[in-house]
Amino acid sequence: MKPFFQVKTSEEIHNIIKTLPRLTEENIGVKDGLDRVLGKDILSPEDLPHFPRATMDGFAVRAKDTFGASEAVPALLTLAGEIGMGQEARVPIEPGHCFRIATGGMLPPGTDAVAMIEHSQQLDSKTIEIFKPVSPLDHVIQVGEDIKKAQPVLMAGQRLRPQDLGILAGLGIINLPVYCHPKAAIISTGDEIVPVENQPPPGFIRDMNSMTLQALTIQAGAIPEFLGRTKDRFDELKSLCQKGLDQNDMVLISGGSSVGARDYTLEVIHSFSGSEVLAHGISISPGKPTILARIGNKILWGLPGHVVSAMIVFTLFVKPSLKQLEGEKIDRSLLGIQARLNRNIASAQGREDYIRVSLQKGKQGWEAMPILGKSGLISTMVRADGLIRIDQNCEGLEKGEWVEVMLF
Amino acid sequence: MKPFFQVKTSEEIHNIIKTLPRLTEENIGVKDGLDRVLGKDILSPEDLPHFPRATMDGFAVRAKDTFGASEAVPALLTLAGEIGMGQEARVPIEPGHCFRIATGGMLPPGTDAVAMIEHSQQLDSKTIEIFKPVSPLDHVIQVGEDIKKAQPVLMAGQRLRPQDLGILAGLGIINLPVYCHPKAAIISTGDEIVPVENQPPPGFIRDMNSMTLQALTIQAGAIPEFLGRTKDRFDELKSLCQKGLDQNDMVLISGGSSVGARDYTLEVIHSFSGSEVLAHGISISPGKPTILARIGNKILWGLPGHVVSAMIVFTLFVKPSLKQLEGEKIDRSLLGIQARLNRNIASAQGREDYIRVSLQKGKQGWEAMPILGKSGLISTMVRADGLIRIDQNCEGLEKGEWVEVMLF
Repeated sequence: MKPFFQVKTSEEIHNIIKTLPRLTEENIGVKDGLDRVLGKDILSPEDLPHFPRATMDGFAVRAKDTFGASEAVPALLTLAGEIGMGQEARVPIEPGHCFRIATGGMLPPGTDAVAMIEHSQQLDSKTIEIFKPVSPLDHVIQVGEDIKKAQPVLMAGQRLRPQDLGILAGLGIINLPVYCHPKAAIISTGDEIVPVENQPPPGFIRDMNSMTLQALTIQAGAIPEFLGRTKDRFDELKSLCQKGLDQNDMVLISGGSSVGARDYTLEVIHSFSGSEVLAHGISISPGKPTILARIGNKILWGLPGHVVSAMIVFTLFVKPSLKQLEGEKIDRSLLGIQARLNRNIASAQGREDYIRVSLQKGKQGWEAMPILGKSGLISTMVRADGLIRIDQNCEGLEKGEWVEVMLF
Repeated sequence: MKPFFQVKTSEEIHNIIKTLPRLTEENIGVKDGLDRVLGKDILSPEDLPHFPRATMDGFAVRAKDTFGASEAVPALLTLAGEIGMGQEARVPIEPGHCFRIATGGMLPPGTDAVAMIEHSQQLDSKTIEIFKPVSPLDHVIQVGEDIKKAQPVLMAGQRLRPQDLGILAGLGIINLPVYCHPKAAIISTGDEIVPVENQPPPGFIRDMNSMTLQALTIQAGAIPEFLGRTKDRFDELKSLCQKGLDQNDMVLISGGSSVGARDYTLEVIHSFSGSEVLAHGISISPGKPTILARIGNKILWGLPGHVVSAMIVFTLFVKPSLKQLEGEKIDRSLLGIQARLNRNIASAQGREDYIRVSLQKGKQGWEAMPILGKSGLISTMVRADGLIRIDQNCEGLEKGEWVEVMLF
């Protein structure tokens, strides 16, 4: 077997990924902004709110008029009127007066607090008893308290969540600069692969890898384009790669776990001018037979043929590379949940291992059960809830140890 | 203030949610199956793989012909041919023979293992030296080892992940029964609300809640339909609710945190025949002023007007109710990550509290920093990474305690 001539650690691969250039930006409406990555920092164009608002139903007051109030000796205030919702409160308050106000209503000039309706009683049409003193700003949102004019709202590189769209909407920012979604071509190789619709004769199998990769690509925020299957022939693979590079930001070649297939992929990469193989082999298990190359300003991944290995390499490296192209600065998809290992796992020192686990709720929180099985068996991924990592300097993990599980 | 006359605990609300009936099913193509919820159990129609496959490049052998082989005394085997990829291997092996085979190739009848190419050497065109013995089944995936005919593949109620689509594709299951996506109408109420595009005069604010709720609905796997804004008037709200109920599985009424607005919502609910208020108030903070009702076979939520409260109620209850309608049996979106609290938090006993937190990487893993702030301030949700829960029997949490953070 030809050796892997340029094996990189996962850290080195991540460092390469960090150098990939971001895609261009486009403008979209805020209502289409969910899960898009912001292209520019956004500063607030105005104060939010732009008027002082009540946060409780009750009476807008001058706080000092309630000082010393109690059940026994309530403050007696003159009801000067009612502030309707969506009404500008223009009339300043006079000492000893109050205005009826509902949650969200505008505080009249001179008022600085809201006395809750629960702590009040109407004596007659003009007189309100307040039983509990309020401090200035009690039950009030001040002008700019949510966000001040010119203050940063959101930063470039943030993937937009519902609340992010909410604050943008609240500020009237209805057009957003976002990075374009990366486009990834997917090519299946292998003389033994038939389309999913076909009944494979002996020796042939259906193309499950490209189905899996398309879905993973969508989950990573990118747009997959499945270019089809090719036999292990140089010309066919080269022509599909050319098409993939022309129309996409990235090409994913799936299959080709045999030495011959890997060799074709390398040959095809080298045949493009301006191509550079950045990694040929990653020192992880499973997933070692991976190729990372740059062709012009496009990225090409040659993924392992075994479906489990391909999924793990996608999760650890391809997804972050797509997120890098899309300009995302904080990727929280690799945040893990804590679980206790329910058996020992051995690991060879000097190799970073990724172990499939399923989770079950135990007495002391989550328990992670390793799923051992060949990396050609997709059923092991179907049974798995996530992955745990064993460092290359570690000889294994013991039953009962806490581990971090990256969820699929 | 009119009291909440039917306050329920969060556990009671979850028990109500579990009784909601599932939506009907539809059939879709497997390539459109990502994040859909399977409507029926799937049994495997065939063995996967349906022929024995090599998992390494090397030589298909009878394992016993290699027993005792070593570097010093290799096993000498006669090369009987090569199994190409995508080729049916029909010729049975003879004792002392071997076939060249690549990863994924079909093992010929009579062979039971693959000797790795790394442990072999070709002596001449007909003779292969094997330096290391193999055991039966070494480097082989057997017929049905991934999944056996008639074995359960996936169960009704599972939300389909990339690997789930992969195994379905591998088995040739190209049409899937899935539950329909729930449709949720969103109605904004409030005299003070203006459309996002408008410049609000004093006393008015832009409609940030409905933007947030639409995005949350999409994240929950459902289809939002924004029906527009209505003033706090019975007729308008009733007519929008009628439209929402006619065309959707659920109606979400946003806004109406004032007593008056809540009263309108209740009046409208009661005005529908066959309506039942299931909860009026939930004993959590924030989020208490929530209404849950059933109108015929449709669900109506009256959400708190404060945007933070509305988001928390959506996350804790509305999302699970949408997932219940869609038939999802395991909701992993509420799985939390472990973090250490970086300050004390007090909590009133008898009330279930939800605290916004931001996360930062500390020396001992994640640290959760509580974000305190009024529930009308959406910026607190923008700064937050997730929520932690304080049980109603708990008077607070201490700095340094481990907490589980539900990520937004």
